[in-house]
Amino acid sequence: MTGRVAFVGAGPGDPGLLTVRAVELIAQADAILYDRLIPAQALDGARPDAELLYVGKEGGGESTRQAEIERLLLDRARAGALVVRLKGGDPFVFGRGGEEALAMRAAGIEFEVVPGVTAGVAAPAYAGIPVTQRGRASALALVTAHEATDELDFGALAAFPGTLVFYMGVRRIEATCERLIAAGRSAAEPSAVVERGTLPGQRTVHGTLGTIAAAARQAEIVAPAITLVGAVAELGEQLAWKQPGALSGLTIAVTRARAQSSELAARLTALGASVLEAPAIRIEPRAVELPSLTSYDLVVLTSPNGAEILFERLAERGEDSRALAGATVAAIGPGTARALRSHGIIADVVPPRFIAESLAEELHGMFARHALIARAAQARDVLPDALRARGTEVD
Amino acid sequence: MTGRVAFVGAGPGDPGLLTVRAVELIAQADAILYDRLIPAQALDGARPDAELLYVGKEGGGESTRQAEIERLLLDRARAGALVVRLKGGDPFVFGRGGEEALAMRAAGIEFEVVPGVTAGVAAPAYAGIPVTQRGRASALALVTAHEATDELDFGALAAFPGTLVFYMGVRRIEATCERLIAAGRSAAEPSAVVERGTLPGQRTVHGTLGTIAAAARQAEIVAPAITLVGAVAELGEQLAWKQPGALSGLTIAVTRARAQSSELAARLTALGASVLEAPAIRIEPRAVELPSLTSYDLVVLTSPNGAEILFERLAERGEDSRALAGATVAAIGPGTARALRSHGIIADVVPPRFIAESLAEELHGMFARHALIARAAQARDVLPDALRARGTEVD
Repeated sequence: MTGRVAFVGAGPGDPGLLTVRAVELIAQADAILYDRLIPAQALDGARPDAELLYVGKEGGGESTRQAEIERLLLDRARAGALVVRLKGGDPFVFGRGGEEALAMRAAGIEFEVVPGVTAGVAAPAYAGIPVTQRGRASALALVTAHEATDELDFGALAAFPGTLVFYMGVRRIEATCERLIAAGRSAAEPSAVVERGTLPGQRTVHGTLGTIAAAARQAEIVAPAITLVGAVAELGEQLAWKQPGALSGLTIAVTRARAQSSELAARLTALGASVLEAPAIRIEPRAVELPSLTSYDLVVLTSPNGAEILFERLAERGEDSRALAGATVAAIGPGTARALRSHGIIADVVPPRFIAESLAEELHGMFARHALIARAAQARDVLPDALRARGTEVD
Repeated sequence: MTGRVAFVGAGPGDPGLLTVRAVELIAQADAILYDRLIPAQALDGARPDAELLYVGKEGGGESTRQAEIERLLLDRARAGALVVRLKGGDPFVFGRGGEEALAMRAAGIEFEVVPGVTAGVAAPAYAGIPVTQRGRASALALVTAHEATDELDFGALAAFPGTLVFYMGVRRIEATCERLIAAGRSAAEPSAVVERGTLPGQRTVHGTLGTIAAAARQAEIVAPAITLVGAVAELGEQLAWKQPGALSGLTIAVTRARAQSSELAARLTALGASVLEAPAIRIEPRAVELPSLTSYDLVVLTSPNGAEILFERLAERGEDSRALAGATVAAIGPGTARALRSHGIIADVVPPRFIAESLAEELHGMFARHALIARAAQARDVLPDALRARGTEVD
């Protein structure tokens, strides 16, 4: 069976601006071809066995790269894959999605398009600048000039009756502003440059069309950045709402196992940190057989992973939560209790402090004949020793 | 404590184009003020106790309405509410979000902005029209002229070097096209009108700047619609990808209880139907006490609701899935089995046909001393009778 391709906009960078449909397709995809400016977290939801192909532009001629991307899309789709072509912003706003869609149509490959939030609207919004505003701008122009061959008509752009937003390299800001002024746009018009729009560490520089290029240079603005020209720009000085966050400016590597890093990463991001997910551990079930649980009075889970693995093992032999009916169930902390709850078990014991010693304290004096401990990492040695010291037999 | 306001874009209509952050905020909101063109399903995720206020424009002067909306936002936020101001598309693209944000700032109310996918990009994309394309358009203008007082500079718009997208009433299409031609835009330029973009029943009319107004009139295009002028328009004839769907043109009322209507509604929408959620039943637990389950050999669940209520009742008295340890658990179908699974129970019996008679057949001959049946609607009478007819004692 032939596969199909989804051209999916990943939004401007903040993973909260992914669409519901984008998240769904990323979770279903057999293969994902992604560009440089997509949110790192966007790929977290991909299947562990999905093929992730980075096709950002670097090295090789531009058109070679484009032909190669189209070849990869066709190749994977013809092999039957659901292929997600993930692009920063919107796939049809300077995303070359149209060219790739034409290539799919020519080859008879089915496709769909999932629009995304574009940076030209979102980056200003995060800087408190409404791109349109009654009395100030009832039209918005989004303009690129990425390719040297695209010669812009600055006369017509200067005359545009509304806000101008340029998606382009920072090195071009100066020439762009000069040419707009030369073509008749007022040098006094409010303007702004937004760097890393919607991402942690977003920065905004305000000025006028005549001063913004120098201000951006002085602030050492780097890509990605958009440049906005129009009366609405000055509203940003009143309406700026995005707080830098307590962790702003920091890059934090999260070394947790991948399945558990997303929640932590999201909290750190919300506090303004740039997060690098670099899983340094991988959780695997131990190669020991799970004993029959009927002979145990007490089952202790010391991590959410332990709980998940316990129920997987039970399911493998056709058992479920009912297998724990004879036992008191203890969880080391609220995360583990939540994992148990998702399998229908309300933990009988959760200690006041979420460490093995506190749990041993709670269990001390309980009438345990045997304690089966689904052990994980840090609790592996501490908990059995602590229990044994109190005369509990431990498996 | 003072509350805060989130200006949230709900996207162009397809609920799949809501952002992740929009969905989160809708689920948390104490109050939601929403406009006419937001997806009906967007409100499904609201808390049952959230205040939903429709503030679409109808009746009353425009400015009265706007002042009233700002008053409501301030009032609810001052009372401590998290207020979501939900707008079609993007809150800052012709959404008057800037005015409302200024009002919040003036009153010292905290706010955030959640950009959305705008119809001027998404409606063309669903019609197979990339708003930008190398060699055809490297700039995009979004233009409105909603208020009679906003006089557009057609000379400058006609000279715009790229795609023009107009967000405006269908009655204005003719005058807009005429004035663009009079200002020098070629009457032969490809153009399109997209009605109900991204919604079920979306329609596209193709033509040229000189013919599109008559074509739209002939096709009886009504609001909401966008008008696109530019060389990219003709790509839609090759790239149209959205199938009308088997249920296209139908409006279907879903009368299920609200908690269960979303999944059905989403499937119907995916097939092209317009869905009206009109819950005609409400599920409430019966006012009978749940007996102790230890004396039962068999527990039969005849609906997901029955399963949910069973576990709620168990939890109320401090019990969990372990209470079912002595019993064989039967589910009437896969939906009920899924509900059981979310409480850690893998159903022992699921009949081949998902009706009460088939379940009775399966259970016939099983060694049931007693059968406790969590009964719901259609199975209420049929199953006990069918079991009793076979000599099973039923509570």
